[in-house]
Order: sequence, then structure tokens, then C-alpha cells
Amino acid sequence: MTQTHPADHALASPAVLDAVAFEAATLVDPPEPDPDVPPRAMPGARRLVDALVRDGLSVHVLGPRNGNDDGLRAHLVAAGLDPGRVAVVAGDATLRRTATSRTLVVTRCPERAAGMAAAGHPTVTIEDRTAHEAVFTWLAGRLGPLAAATALVAPLDGRAADGARARQLHLTKPPGSLGRIEDLCAQLAGITGEVPPPLPRPAATAVFAGDHGVHAQGVSPWPQEVTTQMVANFLAGGAAVNVLARQAGADVVVVDVGMVGDVDAAAVTPGGAPASALLERKVRRGTADLSTGPAMTVDEAQQALEVGAEVAALLVAGGARCLVTGDMGIANTTPAAALVASLTDRPATAVTGRGTGIDDVLFTRKTALVAAAAARARYQHGCEPVAILAEVGGLEHAALAGFLVGGAALQVPVVVDGVSAAAALLVASRLVPGVEDCVIAGHRSVEPGASAVLAELGLDPVLDLGLRLGEGTGALLALPLIEAAARVLQEMSTFGEAGVAGGT
Amino acid sequence: MTQTHPADHALASPAVLDAVAFEAATLVDPPEPDPDVPPRAMPGARRLVDALVRDGLSVHVLGPRNGNDDGLRAHLVAAGLDPGRVAVVAGDATLRRTATSRTLVVTRCPERAAGMAAAGHPTVTIEDRTAHEAVFTWLAGRLGPLAAATALVAPLDGRAADGARARQLHLTKPPGSLGRIEDLCAQLAGITGEVPPPLPRPAATAVFAGDHGVHAQGVSPWPQEVTTQMVANFLAGGAAVNVLARQAGADVVVVDVGMVGDVDAAAVTPGGAPASALLERKVRRGTADLSTGPAMTVDEAQQALEVGAEVAALLVAGGARCLVTGDMGIANTTPAAALVASLTDRPATAVTGRGTGIDDVLFTRKTALVAAAAARARYQHGCEPVAILAEVGGLEHAALAGFLVGGAALQVPVVVDGVSAAAALLVASRLVPGVEDCVIAGHRSVEPGASAVLAELGLDPVLDLGLRLGEGTGALLALPLIEAAARVLQEMSTFGEAGVAGGT
Repeated sequence: MTQTHPADHALASPAVLDAVAFEAATLVDPPEPDPDVPPRAMPGARRLVDALVRDGLSVHVLGPRNGNDDGLRAHLVAAGLDPGRVAVVAGDATLRRTATSRTLVVTRCPERAAGMAAAGHPTVTIEDRTAHEAVFTWLAGRLGPLAAATALVAPLDGRAADGARARQLHLTKPPGSLGRIEDLCAQLAGITGEVPPPLPRPAATAVFAGDHGVHAQGVSPWPQEVTTQMVANFLAGGAAVNVLARQAGADVVVVDVGMVGDVDAAAVTPGGAPASALLERKVRRGTADLSTGPAMTVDEAQQALEVGAEVAALLVAGGARCLVTGDMGIANTTPAAALVASLTDRPATAVTGRGTGIDDVLFTRKTALVAAAAARARYQHGCEPVAILAEVGGLEHAALAGFLVGGAALQVPVVVDGVSAAAALLVASRLVPGVEDCVIAGHRSVEPGASAVLAELGLDPVLDLGLRLGEGTGALLALPLIEAAARVLQEMSTFGEAGVAGGT
Repeated sequence: MTQTHPADHALASPAVLDAVAFEAATLVDPPEPDPDVPPRAMPGARRLVDALVRDGLSVHVLGPRNGNDDGLRAHLVAAGLDPGRVAVVAGDATLRRTATSRTLVVTRCPERAAGMAAAGHPTVTIEDRTAHEAVFTWLAGRLGPLAAATALVAPLDGRAADGARARQLHLTKPPGSLGRIEDLCAQLAGITGEVPPPLPRPAATAVFAGDHGVHAQGVSPWPQEVTTQMVANFLAGGAAVNVLARQAGADVVVVDVGMVGDVDAAAVTPGGAPASALLERKVRRGTADLSTGPAMTVDEAQQALEVGAEVAALLVAGGARCLVTGDMGIANTTPAAALVASLTDRPATAVTGRGTGIDDVLFTRKTALVAAAAARARYQHGCEPVAILAEVGGLEHAALAGFLVGGAALQVPVVVDGVSAAAALLVASRLVPGVEDCVIAGHRSVEPGASAVLAELGLDPVLDLGLRLGEGTGALLALPLIEAAARVLQEMSTFGEAGVAGGT
């Protein structure tokens, strides 16, 4: 079986769209009266255009009828919107003539949208959203959130990242002296397309919860009902993820993507607002035992992937400017290790850990089980990520993978927690190469599978504190450092402003 | 020359005090009506008593006249106040008979204080302070802040640290799963004597600024006036330390302990409140060139040490519950490296770094200069810390060392930044062994001298982000993680509270 190509999930097929026509103001600021003020692309516009062109679509920019097309073209070029990739169309009448029923028209203007729709073109008004959020929402309505997200993952905005680096050289500090903080700042600029990058605030943590049939093999000392009990604890606000999210000013939403039991959110918080919201998206009541057969069907894995992408979109539409991965599922380090072993072809001994803290006997059993499951998955499915996910993964790993693709498409930084999120990132990265550039590894978990993924994808974690709790805790602990990276570029004085000698 | 013993700086001499008599309520909570509620030592009381006993003083606890001495004794024992070290005295009349003019009476009651003072005993009313703050202030008034601090540095409160560890086992998470965060929590409990430890809030950053005669040797590419210019930038709020302190909710105070130039704080912030306060404590206008002779006199080093201890006391009296080290001084990585080489007997090549970023030629010159200075210091002064500090250190290093001793004595966590603070910590630790247990290494600086100190003192830094800016930036970045350590123990639910199975 060959690897699925991202385009298989995407909108590249002519059956969906052949072109997108943007009203100029949805991609670029109008020219300033002052000719010395350089034009600015709208946040994320360059990455959106890159994604659409890579997907095989034509991109048009709608200029005024009989207007100065050359002026608009120069303006787009100056804003970093490649003229070889973007064609200028003069006026609505021209567009109506040349566009097809598969040309999506993106506008700020409800009247124009009505006119274009009447002429048979699909249209979207961006309202107070960015163009990529509007296009994502339109696509998600037709293809589902995962395919929409897959279509819109694009390389980082190198111009913005370079701009952040250049601006750092003017700040009142020795060049490079903030080390990793400066790298994070450039990455945030590359993700968001803005210089300085916006603060990753508010942040939202999605804790995906699921159960695992492999629990029956005794791979965890904890009873399976602890998954449900801990979810009730999240809703009541008493868990580590709640404490750290409160400190960081982040929201927590719990997504039941596959718990065996149910939690009655109203019963957890009688008469009061819950500390975390609960989203009910159960795909099935726990996976099957991955040591004896497929954990789930490919269709179930696909459904859980969709849940994750949907949740990312919900949170971003709700105002989140940073996403944080969380997970809860007794025994979920076993499928995580099996996914990492299968997708990296590393031996089980190199990627299996002690999870919440198991003894040598359990550890030996768990490692052997991971080795057998990974060997079976590789034999049957090669390196096809969704098939491997269904064979040896968990529902929360699948949802996390979809969540990561969604966050990457929506151009918000996604902070990745421990080994479950790392295994999901590996799946997401195999499904849609480039997702890994849009994430920040919050910490290096004690679990060896997490380090294997970091090495495989070339990621350098922000923290290394010997954590192995999960829930999103390590990612939340990294959040203030990521925020600091944006604040430094926003708030520090330059050498010139401060009257300090020696700067550039 | 032999090493100075801490007691030489302390109050152990009978000329100052021979005993301290505490009113019971200054050391321990009054008994609860409910006999099942265990008695609680007042915050920091156990460490205070340990310090006084170690300094050779008798410690008395004042009970009621004709009262139940055995009951009070049992109450003290249950609160962890060792009965072998603390003698119970029944009633004021007995105390007045047995106490000498060198017995300090510590009370909450102004009337009792007046009576004891009239009877010729030194007295202190603790008001809304802790007993150790009150005793520190009294001692500092007689001996100066450094000697007072030296007298009051004590081993961590092992009972509180153990209590934090025990409580962590009941929280809804696998034991030990928060790794380093749990260690930090136990350390905070050991420093403050409280379980759970209080939040390290508000935090205050002291940026000690000085200049260095060795700048004339061309060890830095930056002009010397940048020290003063950057201090003006701190006061205006435009530097990295300001941005990160604002984010962390920490104050910044700049202490001029030895700049060549002066900053007119009013001119920096015309009509507005400065972003940072300036404390003028100039000991001299820059050090002499340490490559050609002593950087300063022992008396000047001692003055700068006093400044640091005084600033720690000022900030704690102002409400700070966490101190953060900061530094500013063009060329100050050269004296830092010389201090580390001298005090650890490591070769200059192993402890000298590139500071703000120097080329190979400068680096070679700097390393040779550090080697020569350290060899001279060791030859002349052995391992006498103040003499070595005067020979090859900087005024900000001396002040930072005093600040660290002050923070340790006042039982607040002190977060240590980069190589300048590390060099100062080494001095402080040689001067008063045990100071290193009361500090938290905020990060691992790129400067090799910082890593040498961490290794020498067995400290594990919270962050490792390739920072080399100084100012306090790396310590401030670690602050949210230290706060998280306290919050987790304060706010998380226990297994019992949350109804989660499997806990202890």
C-alpha cells in the first residue's frame, strides 16, 4: 500500500474548486497616503495564497474596474504576495465573465457577495475573520474540517520570520542573547504571518479523552474508570491541567472522543459553571484491544481525526490565538508507543516507557506487546498513517492528530504536550507534511517515545523538567515562555529609541 | 590565610546576644479547641530557632506564669520545635529574673515589650512581620544587614519539605509525575517553612549595576557608557528585564552600586512614574583594572556586600515573597569568570565565555587575562572569599552575593540568573555555606562559568534556553514555573476530594 498524499484529502480536485478570487482588501492593506509606509499583507494572507497555489488552484485578486492594475500588482508585490502566483482581475464584471461555478469569491462586502452568488459563483464574506479562517470555514462546510485543514496547511511565512529576526537586531540587547526565545519569536511570526507576532492569548487547551481495550492486558496499574473520574475532576477544576491553565490564563475544554463511561457534566458542577467545558464527541466506547487486532476501524479513526480538526476550528472561531494539546486515557502510553514504533520503525525497547509508573514485570509485558503490535501494523499497512492509527492507536491520538492539522491550517501556534501528543504529531506530520513546522514542543517528556518523535521531526522542546503527567500540563508550563517571545518583540525599546550606543 | 568562618560575621559572640526569649505565640499557633488539629509552627520559626541554636545562643519560650509548662512543651514538640533546643520559661517574672542584658525578648505585645525594655532587656515586637524578619531587623540595626543575614541563614526546614512531598502523594496524579515541579515545591516548603508553600508573589528583581576597570583591556566590544545608558533604559521600562518582569508581575529596582556615570532618574521619566525605581548606593565609580591589581579594597567589597543584604531586606520588608537577581555592567563576565576560576580552581579556559558575543581574538585575550588574575588571586588569598572578591570581582558581584545571603536569611526563595549571579552565589556560598540551598537556579546560561558554578554547588537549573543576556531575564522566565510548583500543591484536588480511584 502506498502512502496517502495530502492532496487526496484536499480540495485540489477540480470537482470542488478551480480558483479563488479575493477582493484586494481581504489580502492586503489599502495603500497609505504616505508612500514611505510599505504595504502590509493581511495576517496569514501569504500562507493562504501559498496553500491554494500548492493545491493547484488559480488565485485572483479583484481590482477596480478600469482601475490601475499595474499599481495594484506593485502593491501586492511589495506586500510579499508573489505576482507570479496571483493574477489581477479588473472589476466585478470581468470576474463574473471569467469565473466559473468552481471559483470561490472572497469579499468583505455583503452586496458584492450577493451579486456574485446570484451570478452562480460560490462566495464567502470574511466579516471580522481573517481570509484563511473564512476560506477554512467555507471548505469545512463542503469537505469536512479535516480535508479543509489539510488543504490549508502551508509552509511558514519566511518573510515574516525574517522580519522578526531583523527587528530583534535593533532591540536593546546583544544580538542573539535571548537564545531560544528569539527562535520562538521568529517561529510565531512565521506561523501567524505578523511582525511582531501577536501574543498567543487567549490560549485554549483541548483535553481529548478516550479508553483503550489494551488495558485488559494489564499494561497500567490504574483501573479503567479513572479516565472518566479524571474527566469529572477536569470539569470540577481540581486537576493539574486546571491549575496550570488558570495560572496561564488559558481555557480548558474536555472532548470525550471515546471514553468507555460517561460523565454527567451537570452532576459534577451542581448549580455552578464548570471549570472546563465538556464536548461530547464519542466515536466509540473505548478502542478494541490493539494486542489482539485492530484498535478501531479506519472509518472510526477518520471520524476521530475530524473531531480534532473540528475542535481546533471551534476554539479558533471562539477567539483562541494559541492551542494546547491535552489528553486523558488510562493505558494511552501503550498505543502512543505502538504508533511511534510503527511510524518511525524504531524498536519497541527504544520507544516504550513506564507511563504513570509501572514495575519491571508490567514494563516487560508492555514492551513485548508494543513490539508485536508495531510489527503487525508495519507488515499490514507499511507507512500509511491512517491505517496504522486505526490498527494500533487510540481515539484521543487520532483526535489530537486532527487537532494539530486544524491548528496548523488556522495559523495559530499549537503547543504540544507529552507522548500522546507527540505520537499524534507524528501521525499528523505523515498525513500532512509541514504540520510539524507549526507546532511548538512544550517539553521533553520522560517517556522515550516522546523523545523519539522530537528527534524524528527535528523539534527542540522548550522545557525539560522530567514530567510524565500528560493532560496538557507540560505544554501549559511552556506557555509563558512562548508569550514572552512575542512580548519581547512587541515591547522592548530599540537602540535608537533608548539612546543606547552600539546597536544596529 | 584561613577561610573565614560564618560565625565570624555573626552574632554568636557573647558581646551581642547570649539568648533569645520568644513569646510562645511568635513561634507557634495557639492550641486549637479541637485536639485533632495538630499545632503549627509559625512560618519560618523552625529555621529561625535552628539558626540561633547553631549560632550558640540559648532559645527560651515564654509560657504563662504558673501555667502548664508541660502542655506548652508538648505543643512545641508537636509543632516540630525541638524540645532539646528550646527551653520553656514560666511567666514574665521568671524571665526578668533569668534573662540578661544580652537576652533579646521577642513579643507580639507592646506592653510586654515596654516592661521588658524597662527591666533592661533588649526587646523587639514583631508586629505584622514574621519572627525571623523581626529578629533580622533588630540585628541589622546593631551589626549591619550582612552580619544579621549571615547569622540567620539556616538549613532548609526538612519537616516542611517532607510535608510537601507527603501531600503531593494525595493529589490526583501519578506519584512523581510532575518531576522537577514537585522538587521545586518541596524546596519552596523547605525555604519558607510552610505547607503548602506560599506563592512566590509578589516577586522583586534587583538589578545591581557596576562598571569594570578591566574594560580598558578591550574585553568587550561595547563602550563602557552603555552600562549607564542601559540603566536609563531600565528606568524607562524599555529593556528585556522590564518586559519579562511586567509579564511575570514582578517589580524591578535598579541599584547603582558602582557605575562610572550617573543616571538622573527624573530626566529619564519626565512627569511620569519610572518603570523601575533607582537606588543610589555607589560604593565607587567602577572597579580598578583587575588585570593589573586588585579591583577594589576589601572594605569596598564589604560595603557592596552590605548594600546587597540591605536591598534584600528592603524588598522583603516591602512585601516581596520572592527575590530575583539582576545585573548590568559592561565587561562583567570577565570578573565573573575570574571569580569562578579562583573559587573553584578550574582553568580559565573552562569558565571563560564570549559574553555578549566577542570574536576569537578578544576571546583569547579575555581568557588569558582571566587565567592570570585567578592565579594571582589564589596565590595571594587562598580561598578567602571576600579577599578574592575584592581582588578580581565586581561591585555588582559583591552586592549580589550580599543579596543572596539576605534572601536566604529572610527565608524567601531567590531565583538566580546568569553567570554574574552564579559567580556571586559561589562567593555567598563560600561565605555562608547553605545559601545555595535557598536559591533556585533560573536557567543554564551559555556562559561556561555559570555551568561550572551549577556543577560545583549541585544545582539543577529550571530552564536551558541558550540565554546570555543577563539583567535577570533568565530568572524572570523561570518565575512562572516556580509559581506553578506552589499553585499545584495549593489548588489541586486530592484523590479523596475528587472521587478518583487508586490514590494513597
